Amino acid sequence: MNPSTDVSPTLAAEAERCRRQIRLGQYAGPTAGLAAGCVQANLMILPASWADEFLLFCQRNPKPCPLLAVTEPGRYNVPALGRDIDIRNDLPKYRVWRDGQLASEPTSLDDVWQDDLVSFLIGCSFSFEEALLANGIDVRHIRLGTNVPMYRTNIPTAATTRLNGPMVVSMRPMKAKDAIRAIQITSRFPAVHGAPVHLGDPALIGIARLDQPDYGDPVDIQPDEIPVFWACGVTPQSIISTVKPRFSITHAPGHMLITDVSNASLASF
Amino acid sequence: MNPSTDVSPTLAAEAERCRRQIRLGQYAGPTAGLAAGCVQANLMILPASWADEFLLFCQRNPKPCPLLAVTEPGRYNVPALGRDIDIRNDLPKYRVWRDGQLASEPTSLDDVWQDDLVSFLIGCSFSFEEALLANGIDVRHIRLGTNVPMYRTNIPTAATTRLNGPMVVSMRPMKAKDAIRAIQITSRFPAVHGAPVHLGDPALIGIARLDQPDYGDPVDIQPDEIPVFWACGVTPQSIISTVKPRFSITHAPGHMLITDVSNASLASF
Repeated sequence: MNPSTDVSPTLAAEAERCRRQIRLGQYAGPTAGLAAGCVQANLMILPASWADEFLLFCQRNPKPCPLLAVTEPGRYNVPALGRDIDIRNDLPKYRVWRDGQLASEPTSLDDVWQDDLVSFLIGCSFSFEEALLANGIDVRHIRLGTNVPMYRTNIPTAATTRLNGPMVVSMRPMKAKDAIRAIQITSRFPAVHGAPVHLGDPALIGIARLDQPDYGDPVDIQPDEIPVFWACGVTPQSIISTVKPRFSITHAPGHMLITDVSNASLASF
Repeated sequence: MNPSTDVSPTLAAEAERCRRQIRLGQYAGPTAGLAAGCVQANLMILPASWADEFLLFCQRNPKPCPLLAVTEPGRYNVPALGRDIDIRNDLPKYRVWRDGQLASEPTSLDDVWQDDLVSFLIGCSFSFEEALLANGIDVRHIRLGTNVPMYRTNIPTAATTRLNGPMVVSMRPMKAKDAIRAIQITSRFPAVHGAPVHLGDPALIGIARLDQPDYGDPVDIQPDEIPVFWACGVTPQSIISTVKPRFSITHAPGHMLITDVSNASLASF
């Protein structure tokens, strides 16, 4: 995936305006709904000693970890995703992990930045949710104003030497007709998780209770709806908390990088 | 849909060989598996007094009635679908309907042909089943060597002045992963029913018992499978038996027209 920043000047200007506000500390909330039409990205930062292996892990697991961009060690700009991005300050909130444990949730990385850090920008379901809404599909957690429910599954990721663990999925309940349409729509967006990995019976992928998500908030499911499950960008956070590298950084859930790339440009056909 | 007969000479020769055998009365069985790679078509023949309205009905109901070709009144050649087709003799078995009742099942239409008859050739799921098999998906009724199970539903078709009635669907049980892949595959084939119209709970579309299909044979469904439902080319037969025109002809179930058009050429992308 090599996204293009050939985006409308209006979209790019709005993305830049949001990043500047965040960088100046004027906004520290979730990014859902900001700079509509622009791709938002999950962030995973690792020291160079882990970076090559995480890159291989992403290559082997494109559905939970679709890579939009990878930086050179120590670099905090991401020209592939936008003009003048500063990874250290352009996300509203970060999570710093030490030995796999959450250590702090800063709004800037200036104090913890190291010259050997490599940043991985990973596609986010916000992009395909925009396409679902545009098709008149009810996306339950968006209507409720809550976080999407996410679950650890028994679906194994494709391991590397040191990285392994189960896939995390997000769930959206839908009527069958909408589920079929959602499969068509999200199949066009492999850069942001693509088609679902499962639908129907949650027990078949190791989920015991839909009303008790491992991350995010539960949503109601109506009798005429089925749960539809997509691979989730929280998978690498779950892997990291299993593998426990000495030091790593992620975005705080829902607090994403806003890019200049348009969601529309990610559609594969 | 304007299918092209730009097909490989080998495929077209095999299609023509099959039609010739059928025309000469040397074969009167089902056509499943014959001339692999070639499109097979459902047939509906109506007097000119009904033809314009049935054409409108197909336009309004492209999922159950995807039109591959329509003849001029009285013509029995279909150059759009193959060289030297004779609709009156190139299908192994027909059904003649009088006042909506099955009157006979001849192997030739020579004795009942009229100068005002218009033939409608309608896409058939054989085309997309070939693509499902090529993707390693288990198509249950093919493995069992039986007819696909079909059901009348409570999904209304879009009516015209005189034509109306419920949609008929075919059902294939699949694991969720295969169902998702099957939706992607069949979405590429709008000319042969396209994406499913439903999946999961059959009661939601008015099907009381999956083990008692209205047409075809029942198949087993495993605990880790869900039923997936496609709009079916038997819908017009069901409409005709509701509306009861004085005279009409269809193919006998499973006894289709073999065309020179390749299944591959029907893929929309």
